[in-house]
Amino acid sequence: MTQPHTVHAPALLELCTAILRNSGLPERDAHTVAHSLVDADLRGVSSHGVLRMETYLERLGNRVMNPTPEVKTLSETAATAVLDGDNGFGQVVSQQAVDILLAKTKESPIAAVSVRNSNHFGAAAYWAAQLAEQDLIGIAVSNVEPLMPPPGGSEARIGNNPLSVVVPARTHRPIVVDMATSVVPLGKILNAKSRGEAIPEGWGLDSSGRATTVPDEVINGGSLFPVGGPKGYGLAIIVEVLSALLSGGEFGTDIHSMYQELDSPNQISHFFMALKISAFLDPEIFKASVDRYIDQIKSSPLAPGSDAIYMPGEIELRARDRHAENGIDLPPAVAQGLASLARSAGVPQELLASL
Amino acid sequence: MTQPHTVHAPALLELCTAILRNSGLPERDAHTVAHSLVDADLRGVSSHGVLRMETYLERLGNRVMNPTPEVKTLSETAATAVLDGDNGFGQVVSQQAVDILLAKTKESPIAAVSVRNSNHFGAAAYWAAQLAEQDLIGIAVSNVEPLMPPPGGSEARIGNNPLSVVVPARTHRPIVVDMATSVVPLGKILNAKSRGEAIPEGWGLDSSGRATTVPDEVINGGSLFPVGGPKGYGLAIIVEVLSALLSGGEFGTDIHSMYQELDSPNQISHFFMALKISAFLDPEIFKASVDRYIDQIKSSPLAPGSDAIYMPGEIELRARDRHAENGIDLPPAVAQGLASLARSAGVPQELLASL
Repeated sequence: MTQPHTVHAPALLELCTAILRNSGLPERDAHTVAHSLVDADLRGVSSHGVLRMETYLERLGNRVMNPTPEVKTLSETAATAVLDGDNGFGQVVSQQAVDILLAKTKESPIAAVSVRNSNHFGAAAYWAAQLAEQDLIGIAVSNVEPLMPPPGGSEARIGNNPLSVVVPARTHRPIVVDMATSVVPLGKILNAKSRGEAIPEGWGLDSSGRATTVPDEVINGGSLFPVGGPKGYGLAIIVEVLSALLSGGEFGTDIHSMYQELDSPNQISHFFMALKISAFLDPEIFKASVDRYIDQIKSSPLAPGSDAIYMPGEIELRARDRHAENGIDLPPAVAQGLASLARSAGVPQELLASL
Repeated sequence: MTQPHTVHAPALLELCTAILRNSGLPERDAHTVAHSLVDADLRGVSSHGVLRMETYLERLGNRVMNPTPEVKTLSETAATAVLDGDNGFGQVVSQQAVDILLAKTKESPIAAVSVRNSNHFGAAAYWAAQLAEQDLIGIAVSNVEPLMPPPGGSEARIGNNPLSVVVPARTHRPIVVDMATSVVPLGKILNAKSRGEAIPEGWGLDSSGRATTVPDEVINGGSLFPVGGPKGYGLAIIVEVLSALLSGGEFGTDIHSMYQELDSPNQISHFFMALKISAFLDPEIFKASVDRYIDQIKSSPLAPGSDAIYMPGEIELRARDRHAENGIDLPPAVAQGLASLARSAGVPQELLASL
């Protein structure tokens, strides 16, 4: 039972889609959510993978997430829109936002959509990458509940708000920047706790704002360090402004925790922006330059002890190829959790065979 | 002679303008360059202040910077432009780019200008702040010569490319994020060397790619750590893409050092973008939200040993008020250097009285 379960992506996608559909999501929306999660597992970003199904379904069961949102356009120009996500799944709302954004880029060289009243949208790169497939530079950001204190403060006031930018290349893989604005995500602290290990200094603070190496002191009322101190602090604030403040959504301390307040709506916001490369120069020339830039970077001599140089996102895209071929290794607890969700949702037994 | 010279901003501005004018810049351009430098000194960011005059004039004397550029528009849409800076002063080129960008925001909800073949533009925040004064969210970034290795590499391949975002508030000061993408700028390494001090681990690498605490090992062929490792690496690459690759400019290892290659054109690129707040929601409602968000952040209890919480850029904006009132303290070496430049440029003696 401690061996990982190897599951192929199509089977995992079908299973998660069925669970979500049986839990009240329209077929297409169930597929959208499941696809974003399986894509994260394919890329090896398991923290944003099917592991999340349990929390999503618990929130759905508590009726703090809307399985059938009617996304409303609150304001609009040729190049911009503000949407209200009607408390739908973040992925469902984000797919609509990205589709609206893509339509706007037909006419506008730069377009942006800001979305309020949404929920966790999975990995930010999933959305920015959809934009980059259309010869756009794609940007996707989201606020989350406060997890970081401002420098000089002791209480969490700012989310470790993620941001992603994806740039298409010509023959190389796209450049995929996808980062939280804390030194490490909360998941790494939880992992250290589960292994009974201390965390390095510089990852987190206890509830009085003192640096600590004890995972529990971070988890219970503590907070995460912003990456680079004032730099991560500043970037997280900009993300909050673009997503929550530009959309008129909830922000900062008014955001509820996705995990610890399972019976409160999350009310987070997202922001998506696309720059049409052809508005600046020939996309083929641009993408050839991206290739040359990647070659320049990767031609650096290796540092002592290093065996390769990777572009941002390259490790994940290589993992995707590998996992698409060989299957995804789910930890036993995740596989069992999914099986249990599937049974509760009345999913046909044959879909469970892959677990 | 070791006491700082206190100079009032208007006198310093007049002096620097006169030096630049006498060195061949048109009056208005001389004023633009001088104004950006004096503004940095007012904000206490002396690394980007009148200290730079000496390098600028040496480059001008070597004819690797053009005192009278004709900035050309290479391509244009209603919302975008690509400019060639004709190797002018970065500030001269950037002011034209920002003026073009501001004009585009009259019609377009989001606009951007990418500029190639330019030079050091001073502090990035100087440009983003001009945008924020017009109820825009202002963004300004620039590439610079390679100073950071990719993670796993030993040679500098990526500039510690700065980025600035400025967000207007209602009654509070604007939020001013302005950061290099390295842990510290090269200036901090030079300062440690001049004091004969070691640098903390995590700031720089030696020429073989090994972490070092010896300033000289960083300065002589070494490199700077990206902030947060892969995070600063990713952000720096995005800046390079938006500035140099979108404008068809030189990039990466083709960029020459501003300081160490005084007789080669710098050929750096910039990128400016503005989001019109009114395209999303009423700017007064937005700015009131920014105020509330600032209040939320500053209401955090203080961490042990801390006596205040500052918003990004607040320390610098407070310094500006103080220095506008009391004058700017120039180190003796900087004051003497300016006096010497003024004499060489044949600036009237009475303008030197303030030094």
